Amino acid sequence: MSNAAYDRLKARFARIGAINEAAGILHWDASAMMPPGGGHARGEQLAALAGVAHELLTAPRTEEDLAAAEADGEWDAPNLVLMRRAHARATALPVALVEASSRANSACEKVWREAKADADFGKVEKLLTEVVALQREIARALGERLGMDPYDALMDGYQPGVTSADVEPVFAAYEAWLREALPRAEAIQAKRPAPLPLSGRFPVAAQRALCREMAERIGLEFSHARLDESLHPFCGGNPSDVRITTFYDEENPAKALLGVLHETGHAMYERHLPAGFARQPVGESAGMAAHESQSLIVEMQACRSDAFLAFLGGRLRSAFRAEAKATSPENLARLWRHVSRGVVRVDADEMTYPAHVILRFRLERALIAGELEVADLPAAWNQAMRDMLGIVPPDDAQGCLQDIHWHDGAFGYFPSYTLGAMAAAQLMAALRRDVPELDAQLRKGDLSSMMRWLNLHVHGEGARLGFQDLLRHATGKPLDPADFTAHLATRYLSA
Amino acid sequence: MSNAAYDRLKARFARIGAINEAAGILHWDASAMMPPGGGHARGEQLAALAGVAHELLTAPRTEEDLAAAEADGEWDAPNLVLMRRAHARATALPVALVEASSRANSACEKVWREAKADADFGKVEKLLTEVVALQREIARALGERLGMDPYDALMDGYQPGVTSADVEPVFAAYEAWLREALPRAEAIQAKRPAPLPLSGRFPVAAQRALCREMAERIGLEFSHARLDESLHPFCGGNPSDVRITTFYDEENPAKALLGVLHETGHAMYERHLPAGFARQPVGESAGMAAHESQSLIVEMQACRSDAFLAFLGGRLRSAFRAEAKATSPENLARLWRHVSRGVVRVDADEMTYPAHVILRFRLERALIAGELEVADLPAAWNQAMRDMLGIVPPDDAQGCLQDIHWHDGAFGYFPSYTLGAMAAAQLMAALRRDVPELDAQLRKGDLSSMMRWLNLHVHGEGARLGFQDLLRHATGKPLDPADFTAHLATRYLSA
Repeated sequence: MSNAAYDRLKARFARIGAINEAAGILHWDASAMMPPGGGHARGEQLAALAGVAHELLTAPRTEEDLAAAEADGEWDAPNLVLMRRAHARATALPVALVEASSRANSACEKVWREAKADADFGKVEKLLTEVVALQREIARALGERLGMDPYDALMDGYQPGVTSADVEPVFAAYEAWLREALPRAEAIQAKRPAPLPLSGRFPVAAQRALCREMAERIGLEFSHARLDESLHPFCGGNPSDVRITTFYDEENPAKALLGVLHETGHAMYERHLPAGFARQPVGESAGMAAHESQSLIVEMQACRSDAFLAFLGGRLRSAFRAEAKATSPENLARLWRHVSRGVVRVDADEMTYPAHVILRFRLERALIAGELEVADLPAAWNQAMRDMLGIVPPDDAQGCLQDIHWHDGAFGYFPSYTLGAMAAAQLMAALRRDVPELDAQLRKGDLSSMMRWLNLHVHGEGARLGFQDLLRHATGKPLDPADFTAHLATRYLSA
Repeated sequence: MSNAAYDRLKARFARIGAINEAAGILHWDASAMMPPGGGHARGEQLAALAGVAHELLTAPRTEEDLAAAEADGEWDAPNLVLMRRAHARATALPVALVEASSRANSACEKVWREAKADADFGKVEKLLTEVVALQREIARALGERLGMDPYDALMDGYQPGVTSADVEPVFAAYEAWLREALPRAEAIQAKRPAPLPLSGRFPVAAQRALCREMAERIGLEFSHARLDESLHPFCGGNPSDVRITTFYDEENPAKALLGVLHETGHAMYERHLPAGFARQPVGESAGMAAHESQSLIVEMQACRSDAFLAFLGGRLRSAFRAEAKATSPENLARLWRHVSRGVVRVDADEMTYPAHVILRFRLERALIAGELEVADLPAAWNQAMRDMLGIVPPDDAQGCLQDIHWHDGAFGYFPSYTLGAMAAAQLMAALRRDVPELDAQLRKGDLSSMMRWLNLHVHGEGARLGFQDLLRHATGKPLDPADFTAHLATRYLSA
């Protein structure tokens, strides 16, 4: 059952969705194509589109229709719920607060670049204090409207349906496990031969061809996708026109290649979202953690497995005439599955990466709750890093200045990385139960069964189910970090 | 003097302008970047942006503000006039008529592709009849609102400020001149040696580098521009981010090169529009004929001159190790300034090109006036071609089916090509009076004085002056085809 009000809402959300898709292509263009001189005009274009989309969402007619709308069925009912949620989030904040925050974020982000380059937290402290003050207000207002804890209301903007109460015990258990497991993994690794680096020449054209071939092998059709270059790799565009990017280093093909495997995981999710609900809230992904689970199940679970590395080594040898020894699956595993305590998140291995996330989750929650002040952040950061991994950043550039997120006003995003890694392991365990011959397929570079399973159990569900229900439907249980630690134990703790 | 209503209008038009810029980038992307599978979603995105821009322009508040607004000064006064004109055009047509016409145009354009491939006018006759019927209604409604002849109201949508009464005597005079001049030009040409074709290999990478160098030499800064590939070359983007495209043929570098010179002329106009009125009506170009004058003054007037060909020949020799004989300025002139009676407009030389336009102008005016029916078009076309150039198309694919324009609902556009060619010659004559050393500069590949002159007298004027006043300010007189025929006489009638 649905009614006229709901039908009007569907038309209005389709229009909002089309405007957001337009903005998505313009964001991609700004990173991958735009000449530098186009930046100011691009800002005007994106601001106009954001403004128009916001006005459509918050118009009095939208509110009236939301009050009158009825919809049921397993797609339309959650679609209406998600419409109401989007409207509630969009109308929870006074325009003046949104604008003040947007200005504070851009001012801070600009100065952060200098502060990081100079490893001088003092430079950005005042601006970050302002950003945090406004985020506290935003969190409070959103929390009040949504009936949530303020920090949870921020997290809900990235991964709906997951709260601090869900995350905290999971993260605490991981921390305890890591404290015991990491030294063992290091000891086992120390007894193995050191990894041989891939050596040789890796021309961009050959890297590009290999990356494209791998993306196609995973299932990406280039009739609906592009692969381009940008400083920071990402996946953008829209489901019928996915745009992934990477960055080529002629000294080392691993960066681009592993990056493309990761972004292709994201791209496959977008490509297989339910087309019948394109440009509707329920036709979008289930959130950032769900999205990250799809990039990581491809990159980390499947493509860094022994089985797939055997296949990939052969492709590296033929694409670059690379040495047989360095491209053996054993050496690739030692090279690309190397555990190491480091201070920088983006360089971390899959075992220590969650430690970086847990540290940020606790600090950002304390910042939003007013239990930590920005002035005390560098010391708190370094102390947490010492507690967690036993190391201390040499300076703040490699400490609390390393990520753009907070300096650009993004609080509540970090947990998605680790929730995604855990969900990826949990989905992989279920997939392996359903497809027992998976390793034999991966050894031949064949991900088709895996992708069919993910299309059916994850991609095609859109945002119909919450994060927890998505996992429940696909794996029989809500988020359970045991599959992730079991995966790590198999990979890093067996001598 | 300006008032609050005018200030609100400026803000609203800035927003409309930003949305139109966004659509411009999406159009460029669709031609130069988009994977084919993205087409349907792109249609939704562009429709949403067009709809939103139309609603902003036609909102009751816009009408109230236009009634109350006051502005003076040499920029704000014409800006307000242009705002009122845009509003009048946008509100003149019932939504049902716009939608019916849009549907008829797309249906006809699709079938036209088949009809042209099969050289079968019968296939598209019924759909084109529908297109013309709706264009007649549109022309009548626009004409009533704007107080213009119906056909003039259509032409006004492409080149404001020029009427059939302006165009008719100019075209009649040209036809008379051509009747006498063309046989003479052919006789002179027949006595000269046949042009040698450029022979050799012309790899795309080397063509691209040469095209880019030439665009830069003309003055295009790639910090604010891109050069890419598309099936049909065009200039898109916006003034701070101009996107030109071309199409490379490894057998023949002339196509891409001359195409890029042409598109760079358009690009320079966009780049030097008055930045202080970016995204305002008065900050746009003075119309399609004015725009074409800028592509043609660069391509036809400057770059196909003896002086520039001497420079370009040297660059062709070094870029492709091309033969000295074929790249002499004399041979390039014979090759790229070859007069020939042909049935296809896009292959025509600069002397016979206007004949193709005059033929179309007369036929489309008769179609809109109801003096010619679509069923009679093929015969009328062929008769006009025989009268004008003494040749008859072998079939309708090379006759009345050759252009997309009418089949896509574009009536009133064709005259701009020839008005632009005439304006280019008139501007060049004035420029040569102000810069007597121009040929010496062109011989060195230096267009900087020329571009400074055009920036000052054309580009920087935006849409402040009408087409005729723009010419009056720049050259001391309104459109005068004598400069164009004088240019042709110098180039083609001196033995």
